[in-house]
Amino acid sequence: MKSKLISIGDEILIGQIVNTNASYLGERLYSAGVPVEKIVVIGDEESMLISELEDALNNYDVTIITGGLGPTHDDITKPVLVRFFNDELVKDEKVLEHVKKIFSDRKIEMPEINVEQAMVPKNSKVIWNELGTAPGILFERNGRIIMSLPGVPYEMKAMMENFILPYLESNLLKENKIFLKQKTLLTTGLGESSLFEKIGDIKSVIGEAKLAFLPSAEGVRLRINVKGERETETQKQLNEIEIKLREKIGKFIYGVNEDSLEKVIGKILRDMKKTLSVAESCTGGMISQKLVSIPGSSDYYLGGVCSYSNKEKINILGVKEETLKKYGAVSEATAIEMAEGVRKLTKSDYSISTTGIAGPDGGFPEKPVGLVWIGYSDSEISFAIDFSFGSNREINIRRASMRALEILRRKLLKTDLNFK
Amino acid sequence: MKSKLISIGDEILIGQIVNTNASYLGERLYSAGVPVEKIVVIGDEESMLISELEDALNNYDVTIITGGLGPTHDDITKPVLVRFFNDELVKDEKVLEHVKKIFSDRKIEMPEINVEQAMVPKNSKVIWNELGTAPGILFERNGRIIMSLPGVPYEMKAMMENFILPYLESNLLKENKIFLKQKTLLTTGLGESSLFEKIGDIKSVIGEAKLAFLPSAEGVRLRINVKGERETETQKQLNEIEIKLREKIGKFIYGVNEDSLEKVIGKILRDMKKTLSVAESCTGGMISQKLVSIPGSSDYYLGGVCSYSNKEKINILGVKEETLKKYGAVSEATAIEMAEGVRKLTKSDYSISTTGIAGPDGGFPEKPVGLVWIGYSDSEISFAIDFSFGSNREINIRRASMRALEILRRKLLKTDLNFK
Repeated sequence: MKSKLISIGDEILIGQIVNTNASYLGERLYSAGVPVEKIVVIGDEESMLISELEDALNNYDVTIITGGLGPTHDDITKPVLVRFFNDELVKDEKVLEHVKKIFSDRKIEMPEINVEQAMVPKNSKVIWNELGTAPGILFERNGRIIMSLPGVPYEMKAMMENFILPYLESNLLKENKIFLKQKTLLTTGLGESSLFEKIGDIKSVIGEAKLAFLPSAEGVRLRINVKGERETETQKQLNEIEIKLREKIGKFIYGVNEDSLEKVIGKILRDMKKTLSVAESCTGGMISQKLVSIPGSSDYYLGGVCSYSNKEKINILGVKEETLKKYGAVSEATAIEMAEGVRKLTKSDYSISTTGIAGPDGGFPEKPVGLVWIGYSDSEISFAIDFSFGSNREINIRRASMRALEILRRKLLKTDLNFK
Repeated sequence: MKSKLISIGDEILIGQIVNTNASYLGERLYSAGVPVEKIVVIGDEESMLISELEDALNNYDVTIITGGLGPTHDDITKPVLVRFFNDELVKDEKVLEHVKKIFSDRKIEMPEINVEQAMVPKNSKVIWNELGTAPGILFERNGRIIMSLPGVPYEMKAMMENFILPYLESNLLKENKIFLKQKTLLTTGLGESSLFEKIGDIKSVIGEAKLAFLPSAEGVRLRINVKGERETETQKQLNEIEIKLREKIGKFIYGVNEDSLEKVIGKILRDMKKTLSVAESCTGGMISQKLVSIPGSSDYYLGGVCSYSNKEKINILGVKEETLKKYGAVSEATAIEMAEGVRKLTKSDYSISTTGIAGPDGGFPEKPVGLVWIGYSDSEISFAIDFSFGSNREINIRRASMRALEILRRKLLKTDLNFK
């Protein structure tokens, strides 16, 4: 079983956007047992698409086309597919309803051109697009599957998760199954090479399996891939690798797979029936935004203050003018007073705070760009810890946000706060 | 003149890394007048590479292969190229020196396997790799150029900038130079199909040029591409298209190319020497975070309050309990009181606020998920406008953040607030 991806879009060819759709699809299809062997990116150009479709029908079990499904003049995927498969377009009333509803929900009059979105090839299956107006299309010919999806990432992903992966599972994969198991351990607070050193002899940990280190400003994801002929054995092997990794770097692992630090923390706070507030200076709202991104977070997240100027630190959070004068805004004392201030203001059980020099300017020798104090406060203790996150403003803000949440997670779980 | 990219690497196929090399190359080759028409990603697999090389020699002026040049067993690019071109490997003493020096500089003994790096095809040009051990290789046959570069991004980029782009300029492009000009207009507040309708007869606006619609939750980017034989004329044509588009959809355009709404607003506020504060409920800190992402934003952004619960709306922002009781948290009155509250609290010149039902739960018939009130306040006027942003929580938050900033931009520029 193997698959091919065809991405349609000039914006990828001229380097305006990075092909993240292909990465997502590559990863999902690999896990599903239909690994991608070829990715092709072309523009909205009929002859090139036709020749890629021929190659797809001849050589690949599954082909996924993304992009070129919009209603405007530069979108050619649907008409080309119709010609390639000698098909014809018919109106799908259910899709039309849905397109109309999307516009009426947003209180916008539907431009006439969108009726086109409801025209689908007669001899194909419609792939429902809950989040957008362009339906997906699925052709099946001689056991080969060719699917066309919109290029908008969140629409495409929802269609993969809700329809395509279950469809492949039940239609293609049940006969000739190789078991591919994958698990990603999410770490934060330690760099790639330090994790690598802590793990030590990789071979003795993973055996024949694969372990990939995927670093970002948020932390390093460790992806384990195991292959086998029997499901239980493959799963067992995966579990054993996870146990060995947790023995060596357990305290840096905050979650697995699709977890996020804010989701993990939300679950803990909800279980404890406790509440949280945040006072952000250098992170400017990113921590708050992460917390709010979790549905239902209003149960435990009371709110926050982005006290970007000193005046706000004093007026809203009650940081003492004296403290700011004596120690400066980026200091242990200020971070602590910010955390205590927001906790009192909101009457929350826990609070965290950040104050730092995000850069690129504003640093000086004893307080260089990248210095961030992270404060913590609960009913028993308040403290702050300093970190140096480097000179890039964006990376800095992302690292500081993660570190503040990680300190909170460790405090909630009563784990040690050492990041070595 | 057109080009093709071949990326070699399993890690791209399984979605472990995103193909950023292709974006970089796409952009550089486009600007250099050799636009990429096809990108292919394959694994370390001889037969697939051979067939891509045949396609390259038959159809493209320039082909760049990245990856698969390492010294280990799974790197096949060099041996396959040697077979494909009926060539043979010879030792390059200068490259060997360089490889040895790289190891001695890092005080590491050179593993014997690295001698292989200095073996290059006899009938090719070596592309010097100052930063790494794998040299690039350039074949030229019947006016077609095929180059092989390492996959390590910074090595590859240095080789492009220092050797390949100058080489293409002097060897290929001086005779048949075509000028390619590109500009992207950034819009927000109106969907793809509505913009399309407003523009009307596309042909009369763009002539032979290309216009691409690139939608996201933040808005629609309109990319104009113009091609011509003389530089001034091509630039003039681009300017004329921009003017025509601005006549039709000008008020939705907040910037061009690499602009962002927060950057544009920052510039206006700085020029006006005015200050801003933000009160966020449903957007939870995203607006604040966008503002803070701009270096130097502390000059005009005073801070914000993420009043995620009613208590915080009352305690911190001074929203009246009566207002919340009578109209609810998601209401015109609350949005206005939030904006006025944060403006008074921070003594800023301007303020914006958001309160809405982000979803997926929490909606009811007269206040469905996606309903967001956006408030605005300055020393002369306070008001709020309601929008319906649909049912997806993440999209909702992103749309509401953009819309609040766009309302502020229009007020600062005294443009009308109509989003139709």
